[in-house]
Amino acid sequence: MEFKFAYRMSYLKASEIREILKVTERPDFISFAGGLPAPELFPVDEIIEVSRRVLAEDGASALQYTTTEGYAPLREWIANRMNFTRGTDFDADNILITHGSQQALDLSGKVFLDEGDTVLCESPTYLAAISAFKAYGCRFKEVPTDDYGMVPEELEHILNTTERIKIIYVISDFQNPTGRSWSLERRKQLANLAAKHQVVVIEDNPYGELRFEGEALPSVKAFDKTGCVFCLGTFSKIFCPGYRIGWVAGDKRAIDNYILVKQGADLQCNTIAQREISKYLELYDIDKHIEKIREIYKRRRDIAVKTMEAEFPKGVTFTRPQGGLFAWVELPSDINARDVLDKCLEKNVAFVPGGSFFPNGRKENTFRINFSYMPVDKIVEGLQCIAGILKEFMKNNTRERNRQ
Amino acid sequence: MEFKFAYRMSYLKASEIREILKVTERPDFISFAGGLPAPELFPVDEIIEVSRRVLAEDGASALQYTTTEGYAPLREWIANRMNFTRGTDFDADNILITHGSQQALDLSGKVFLDEGDTVLCESPTYLAAISAFKAYGCRFKEVPTDDYGMVPEELEHILNTTERIKIIYVISDFQNPTGRSWSLERRKQLANLAAKHQVVVIEDNPYGELRFEGEALPSVKAFDKTGCVFCLGTFSKIFCPGYRIGWVAGDKRAIDNYILVKQGADLQCNTIAQREISKYLELYDIDKHIEKIREIYKRRRDIAVKTMEAEFPKGVTFTRPQGGLFAWVELPSDINARDVLDKCLEKNVAFVPGGSFFPNGRKENTFRINFSYMPVDKIVEGLQCIAGILKEFMKNNTRERNRQ
Repeated sequence: MEFKFAYRMSYLKASEIREILKVTERPDFISFAGGLPAPELFPVDEIIEVSRRVLAEDGASALQYTTTEGYAPLREWIANRMNFTRGTDFDADNILITHGSQQALDLSGKVFLDEGDTVLCESPTYLAAISAFKAYGCRFKEVPTDDYGMVPEELEHILNTTERIKIIYVISDFQNPTGRSWSLERRKQLANLAAKHQVVVIEDNPYGELRFEGEALPSVKAFDKTGCVFCLGTFSKIFCPGYRIGWVAGDKRAIDNYILVKQGADLQCNTIAQREISKYLELYDIDKHIEKIREIYKRRRDIAVKTMEAEFPKGVTFTRPQGGLFAWVELPSDINARDVLDKCLEKNVAFVPGGSFFPNGRKENTFRINFSYMPVDKIVEGLQCIAGILKEFMKNNTRERNRQ
Repeated sequence: MEFKFAYRMSYLKASEIREILKVTERPDFISFAGGLPAPELFPVDEIIEVSRRVLAEDGASALQYTTTEGYAPLREWIANRMNFTRGTDFDADNILITHGSQQALDLSGKVFLDEGDTVLCESPTYLAAISAFKAYGCRFKEVPTDDYGMVPEELEHILNTTERIKIIYVISDFQNPTGRSWSLERRKQLANLAAKHQVVVIEDNPYGELRFEGEALPSVKAFDKTGCVFCLGTFSKIFCPGYRIGWVAGDKRAIDNYILVKQGADLQCNTIAQREISKYLELYDIDKHIEKIREIYKRRRDIAVKTMEAEFPKGVTFTRPQGGLFAWVELPSDINARDVLDKCLEKNVAFVPGGSFFPNGRKENTFRINFSYMPVDKIVEGLQCIAGILKEFMKNNTRERNRQ
């Protein structure tokens, strides 16, 4: 059998992260590669209790089909939470429960993108968003991005000069992969520019609640007067990713179309998962739980930044994120992070080379460090190992240059 | 904001079933509309135990991300099960766990279909498969279908004369909506024709294990010598639909592409759900559980068929399925089942009009009856109500005809 696959299969490729994760599953590996939350923080005992109660009180409904929109009390909680933490003005009808925020990305592509449309994104951007959107045949244009978000003049210029822009995709808080956050001013500017040009903004925010310091900023949606901004969220980073429960929130007219494509895609999310999370939120204090996560991740961020400052050779720069899970490292332009990774893998240390986070031009002298997953002693050990290898690379490269 | 939705949104529409289900959620409704399993058969106590053990023994992994392919022991169980019950020859590597078999339909479309490709289907066919495939811009060609499956001469003629056929979609056992099953001979013929014409077969089989009588037949895959047949399955009908755990099984070269598109679509299925089902299969006897489901559904099928035989007016025909969840009713051609439904809804009785199960020409004088969900007294009461309304329609139509 010669399979005739859809044309899209010719330009989709396996996520580099998921491929690296397979290699690094061994327990002796020090992995900065995944975006994995620290499993020792999962509230296992509470979830045992929650699961028992959901099943004992209403097992027949919890195990049955439910509506595509999702479990009503959970949608209401999400609306209230976002209004409180992010300055939005949603009610339950604005929320569709999705199979993780990854599905919200996929559905966004399905609702808005035709073959040949353009998606604007930060540079670099989240690599699994690239693959979600790409499946609908779009092109990407990377908007020059600095420490405060997309540069507004550049964004405006691109909006003025590019055809068929359908989506501006951003991660406003503690971006994946850089850990950078958008300033307040930039959020307002983005909302205004998107409204003026009638382009949809997909504001992805998996990490916003994981702020270690500084002031929490409102969602871009808080400045949206026309309904063009859609907010994605997830329980993966503040609760447990295994549940695969996320959401998309936005203008009801478009959410109805999201519901329609979700019907065809998988009917609905896992009923029990929705009920269990909802019951957890009813019985326990998720703020206390998030506070615990923040403390641990902050300590890990601190130690990671401190170690990089002490050990990484001169000429290597990195971000110092105020929250989230990731930091971003930039090497001298003549060093390819994939080569560094190969050497690190030999010593059982892993990270994700940065090239895949650029949908067009690849900047191969970059990589992403996850600091949420490993305990502090492993973080120190792993970063020291990377530092050692980086020093060798820089020494060799200097030698090369001197020889030329 | 004037939303510019993707072109596909202009031809997708809400599932009629899901819309009717919303109306019939009230407990006083007698609903033959959904494809709902009987919730009183869900093994709630066993699931409480299973959930406790999964979380207590390995909570950190059960709540964490996992691989896109799915939980290895579950994939292995599925491969063995299919080999035993359906005469296939799979191993775990042939299996991708999906978010219900509905997602396996969606991923099949994404992997194989380009805009303008053709999907061949039975006539009528499962309406949510129509919406899943349609999202990828395909056309449908309905293959004339009788009580034994697609008519091979008609199928061959269409294969010879139609361009860009990518998929033949069939439900071989107790089809949704008709309850009919393919004969052994037709299965072989389908496998041979598909191989000869190098077309992929998507064999959907959510109900195969729910056989009340007669001999179980092998999967079309059992006669596939070239790798063109892909089998979809699900735990929804033999266990609980709320888990949203299904699968696609087939040639590894194509399954790799399914995995790739699933990565972009939602990363992976719910980890806990996969672990819990796997633990249930380890601790309990699912065959015993399925036997219980079969007994109850058989009794309901018996009473439904008996009531229709006794009460439905002459000129109304219906199928007598040997298993599954559905029977199919055909009215005289001048009666529109939607009009009948309107009258039934007034009396709190619901079913799904058959028109939506035909992707092209609609046969509006048909409807689908689910017999798995309601207890027997409600089945009798509801079918008697439908029979009464049908009699009035036929009387009125006869009067109309006499007047003309």
